[in-house]
This record gives sequence, structure tokens and C-alpha cells, in this order.
Amino acid sequence: MSVTAPLGFLAAGVTAGLKASGQPDLGLLVAQGDAVAAGLFTTNAFPAAPVAVSRRHLAGGRARAVVVNSGQANAGTGEAGVADAEETCRAVGEAVGTDPERVLVCSTGVIGPRVPVERLSAAVPSAMAALAPDGGNAFAGAILTTDTRPKETVVDGPGFLVGGCVKGAGMIAPDLATLLAFLTTDVGVEPEVLDAAVRQSVAPAFNGLTVDGCTSTNDTVLVLASGASGVRAAAGTPELASLEEALAGAAEDLVRRVALDAEGASRALVVQVAGAASEADARTVGKSVAGSLLVKTAVFGGDPNVGRLLQAVGAAGVAFDPHAVRISIGGQVVVEGGRVAGFDREACREAMKEREVAIRVTLGSGAGEATCFGCDLGYEYVRVNAEYTT
Amino acid sequence: MSVTAPLGFLAAGVTAGLKASGQPDLGLLVAQGDAVAAGLFTTNAFPAAPVAVSRRHLAGGRARAVVVNSGQANAGTGEAGVADAEETCRAVGEAVGTDPERVLVCSTGVIGPRVPVERLSAAVPSAMAALAPDGGNAFAGAILTTDTRPKETVVDGPGFLVGGCVKGAGMIAPDLATLLAFLTTDVGVEPEVLDAAVRQSVAPAFNGLTVDGCTSTNDTVLVLASGASGVRAAAGTPELASLEEALAGAAEDLVRRVALDAEGASRALVVQVAGAASEADARTVGKSVAGSLLVKTAVFGGDPNVGRLLQAVGAAGVAFDPHAVRISIGGQVVVEGGRVAGFDREACREAMKEREVAIRVTLGSGAGEATCFGCDLGYEYVRVNAEYTT
Repeated sequence: MSVTAPLGFLAAGVTAGLKASGQPDLGLLVAQGDAVAAGLFTTNAFPAAPVAVSRRHLAGGRARAVVVNSGQANAGTGEAGVADAEETCRAVGEAVGTDPERVLVCSTGVIGPRVPVERLSAAVPSAMAALAPDGGNAFAGAILTTDTRPKETVVDGPGFLVGGCVKGAGMIAPDLATLLAFLTTDVGVEPEVLDAAVRQSVAPAFNGLTVDGCTSTNDTVLVLASGASGVRAAAGTPELASLEEALAGAAEDLVRRVALDAEGASRALVVQVAGAASEADARTVGKSVAGSLLVKTAVFGGDPNVGRLLQAVGAAGVAFDPHAVRISIGGQVVVEGGRVAGFDREACREAMKEREVAIRVTLGSGAGEATCFGCDLGYEYVRVNAEYTT
Repeated sequence: MSVTAPLGFLAAGVTAGLKASGQPDLGLLVAQGDAVAAGLFTTNAFPAAPVAVSRRHLAGGRARAVVVNSGQANAGTGEAGVADAEETCRAVGEAVGTDPERVLVCSTGVIGPRVPVERLSAAVPSAMAALAPDGGNAFAGAILTTDTRPKETVVDGPGFLVGGCVKGAGMIAPDLATLLAFLTTDVGVEPEVLDAAVRQSVAPAFNGLTVDGCTSTNDTVLVLASGASGVRAAAGTPELASLEEALAGAAEDLVRRVALDAEGASRALVVQVAGAASEADARTVGKSVAGSLLVKTAVFGGDPNVGRLLQAVGAAGVAFDPHAVRISIGGQVVVEGGRVAGFDREACREAMKEREVAIRVTLGSGAGEATCFGCDLGYEYVRVNAEYTT
């Protein structure tokens, strides 16, 4: 059910003919009234046109609808691309009966080409007709590009739900690099409270994910809150704490699904870092390990190459006492006191063949913790990224 | 001739039995008197033992000898590793007839195991006996690990020479990640002047190189000046400018050779960035492009995947006006005014099949420039890093 699990949302996914494959390529999510909305966007200096437009439309902290096309990223398209994104919002706003400013827009696909907006607009009526309270699966399917499967989550809170879906496998075909995630909840919450909750509880999970170290031009996370559950999460209340916990859980669940469906990958890497001077330091170290080419290829080979872990921790650019560092793979301690330890190589090899390879790093510098997700890198990664042509 | 091309240096490379392969594994470089010396070392938080020892020995700005072993990196070895590096300096100092503090030491090989110092010390007499004024090639060969060939350079200055060699291919066998470079000159120069010249003229070339984004525990660049040419390079003189130019040329030549011999690589990537707000910004953008997995796989595939270049420039974390950005591949403009341009795809495809793929980025923010070197990433990279076991 993904984004339609919480009360107050309808969704649909249809085929507008934007993809050559004929697969569904237009997702529509509509709140039954104005929802409170918050978003996180790419830090790439070439943000895609829909990123610029959605960021502007989010200024009011409320949204009625989200429209997503797959097939074209609408990035590197200049002013014409911005006009295309605005025209998409206008067409959806007119169909839904709201201002274009209450419509958020996302695109994913090839960088460079323009979105065929006439074709997209022509499909809006069929998307409206398909809107359903159980349309979350169809929505989650229509936003995919080269993902091998939809990735959805539902988290139960006390008296409310958080639902979500995400697309993003990495680059299974070239130029498709976008991570788009959508979370909904039926909690009632003020815009600034939701915005703060999203930055605190949703951002860390996504910022701890790396498939290939390449920040897309289109990355977007949107969170919509309908209030339809009757639960209200005001600042400083236990309800807000529950909402934050549910949002964090939903975000981590989606991130884990992306790592497991990453392009050409066979295993996910889960790097837990503890004892850092700050949460930011812990995340920097975790991403240095999860994103290291040498660690990724070692995990692909199922080889407990301990020197590479030591190297990746040390290269993170974070200050710590090397003599206090401990590293383990699947519970086996491989570095102790900053030195390579004697360890059971066979047990480590087995741990590195799990679907999720667990690496734990303890720095001994403080109380900062983070969990980062990555994936291995093997021949299939090269194949999907080198053999396909644009 | 590499490091023995300038006057005042003898070198040798012998087999001490440190490598299982039986290949030469002990290099010795001896100045005919105390040379002025400067160095650059890894920023990894787990510096190898020889890095710590050489850094300390360089405090006086002079050195008589450099000893290098290949086979073991002497990293992740704790206090025992430091004692091993010191014992190596003691053995060489005794043989050469100088204080251990005038001996610099480098190691490259597997992280974790200790260097068999007794075996190394036992081979010092044969290295001493092999010292020769044309021993630079033997030295360059003995420091290799999984490099496919020695990498040497000689640059002619007015009345003096700069010679050098480098090892470092990336990780053709696991755990071997070290870049070691040695430059010599027969210019006479004061320690603090040489140190400043090295930081200004040598560091940028090496800091612009990325094979796999993984900063080793052992990276070391050492520069020794004998003064034997009779040319003196005092601060503010034209001779110093000539020395800096020659050092920069030698460093860039060595860096280019590393990129061309990078593990599993078939092509070098040469990314020139101009118009940045600073040289540091230019280097950050260049390394973002040269190190991008998506750019590297596109170059391997010979595919002019322009969206990936745009993405990599934008993801560098450097501020610029996207509308001012131009990108070209082999002289073909592919991004103009921040938009993907119409371009001759066939010509681009040809340019991407050159042994050196030339990418040029102009940012329009200032006068900062940098040239960065990288390499492609294909199946062979995965094979050498995943199929070999530790």
C-alpha cells in the first residue's frame, strides 16, 4: 500500500508513453485536502528543473498533489525544462482543482532530453480516473526506472501510520541516477514541526546511503501529512516523538531496500559506526567504508580484506585516536587497538557472503553513532554501466 | 636513470627475499653527502610505521639515504612496526656510515604483516655493494608491487637535472595501495626553501591523482637535493623558479605514468578545469569527475554519457553559476551554459577511445585552474580486486 496506507491519500500509476519500454511512467499522489508537506532535495549544483519548482512550491509548507514522471530526468534542460515542470503542475492542479503551487513535481530518467509534456498532460485524466485508496502500489511501480522491483514500507505508530516508497537502484541503465522517496502519514502536524522532524529523523537515513558515491541531479524526498488519523503531533509532545521514530524507521527501511536492489549488486553493506565525536563524524566514517571501491570489491569477492577496512576508516578525514579503534565483520573482531588482530578467517569469509554484510567500527572518541548502507561492486556493475549506451 | 640522473646519488635494487615472488624487493638510494630533503606524507589517520619514522627523521631537513622495501606495508602493525622501521634505519645507517636519523624509510605491500627485518638487514651489504651511479633503474624496479612496469622521469633544468621514479598502480593484488615517489636533483637549496618548493610545485600534481579514491596508509613523496650541479636555488631567484618548474614537470610526468599503469585500467582520464574561484576548487571539481564511478565506467565503455559529466561537476560541492558551465570531451563541446548541448556523438565516441581521454571543464567563476588524472574502470578492475584473496 506504501503511500496510501495512512488515511487521507489516493494514488495511481499509469502509462503515459514517456518511456520507450511501455512500462508505467506517470505516478500521481493526491491528498484528500491540503496536506502539510516537507522535502529534502539534492545538493548537486545542477539541480533538475522539477527540484527547483518543487522547492519553490514547498515554501508554503502545504501540498495537495505530487506528480512523478519516469523516463526523462528533466535535468540539464535549462529554462525550457523549468517551463515544462511548471506546465506539468498546472495540468495536474487544474485536474485536481487546486493551485499549481500546491502541486509538487518529480522526474527521473535520462539527463538532457525534455519531458514530452503534451503526452504527459494528455494522460492526467486517466491518472485521475485511476486514483484509489489502495493505489500506493501502482504509484510505487510507475516511478521506477531500472529498479528491479518496487520498494515500499509501512510503519505502525500509536494511532497513526507512516507509509512510503522509493525508487533508485543506482544506474542500471546509464543516466538514471535518481533517488526519489515519498512518505505519507495521517498524523496532523504544523509545517515547521514536520519540516524539523523530517530533517532530524528522515535525512540521516538517506544521507547514510551510498550506491556509487554519485549525487544525482534529481534526488528528492517528499513527506506529506494528512492529519486524517486524528493524532496530532505538536512540538514537544510524545506524539511528535512517536512520529519522528516512525519516520526514521520508514526511512531506514526504504534505504535498506535501495541498498539491496542497487545496480549490479549482490549484497548490501551495513556499516555501523559508534564512539565517534559526533553523529556527523560517525556518518563520514561509515560512508567512507560503505563507499570504498576496495571494500566494495572485497565484499563482492567474499574476501575479509582487513587492511582495506583500516584504510577506509583512516581515510575518512575524521579525527580520532588510531589506538582506540576496533573493527568487526559479522561479529568477528578484525582490528583491535588500531592493529590488525588475529581472527578466524573462515568465519569472516562466511559473514562476508551474507545478503547483508555487517561491519561495525568503534572509534572511542565519543557518543556519536550512525548506520550507513552500501553495496558490493562486481562485474554486473561494470556491465550495466559500461555496456549500455546512451 | 630516474633518481640517479642528477649528480650526487647512487642507487641499487636487490632481492632480500621479502616477497614470495622472488622479485627485487629492496631499494637503496644514497647521496654522496648529506642531501637536503623534503617530504609529503599520507593524510590517512592510520599512517604506516615508516611514515611516522621518516616524518620524524625529516625534521632536520637533511638525509643521507632512503631505504624502501616492497612486500609488506608495515601498516596496522602498532609499536612493533615502528621498532622494525627504526631497526631498518639503524642497519642502513651503520652500513652507510651515518646516523639512523639521516636515513628515510618507506614500505609498500600487504597491510598487517610485519616486515622480516632480519632478512632485510641481511641483504643490506649486497645492496651497498650494488650501489651505482646508474642504479636508478634497479631502484625503480625494486620498489614495485603490482605495477606492470617501472615509472621514471628525468627533467632538464638550466644547468641541473631533476630525476624521479614512482610506484603505485592501485590495487592489482589486494592490500597494495601505496604510492611512493622519489625525486632527486643536483641543485643546491636550503631545507626550508626546498620544503616550500615541494609543497607548491610537487604536491598539486599528486593531490590531483585518483585511481580509486582510496588514500593509502603509506603514501610518501620524498625529494632529495644534492647540490652537486653547482646551481644554487636561493629564495626569490630565477634558479628557484626553474627548480620549481622542473619539479612540477617531473611530478606531473610521474602522475601521468601512474594513471596509465593504474590497476585494471585501459585508459587515462585527464580532466582540466579552468575558471574556478580558486585552484583548490578547480582540483575538487577535477577529482569529482576523474573519480566518478559513472564517468569511469562510461569511459571504459567509450560512451559519451554527458549527463554523468554534468552530474559529477555538480556534485563536487563547489559553488559556481551553473549557467556559466561549459564541458568538452576531446575538444567537442557537450555542455554549454549549463545545458546539454547538441554535439557530434561519433566524434565524442572516438575521443573517448583514446589512450588519454581529455575532458575540459570551464566554470566561469575565476582564474583557478587544475589538471587532474584518473583512469577508467572495467571488468579487469573487478577481477584484480575481487578474485585475488589476501
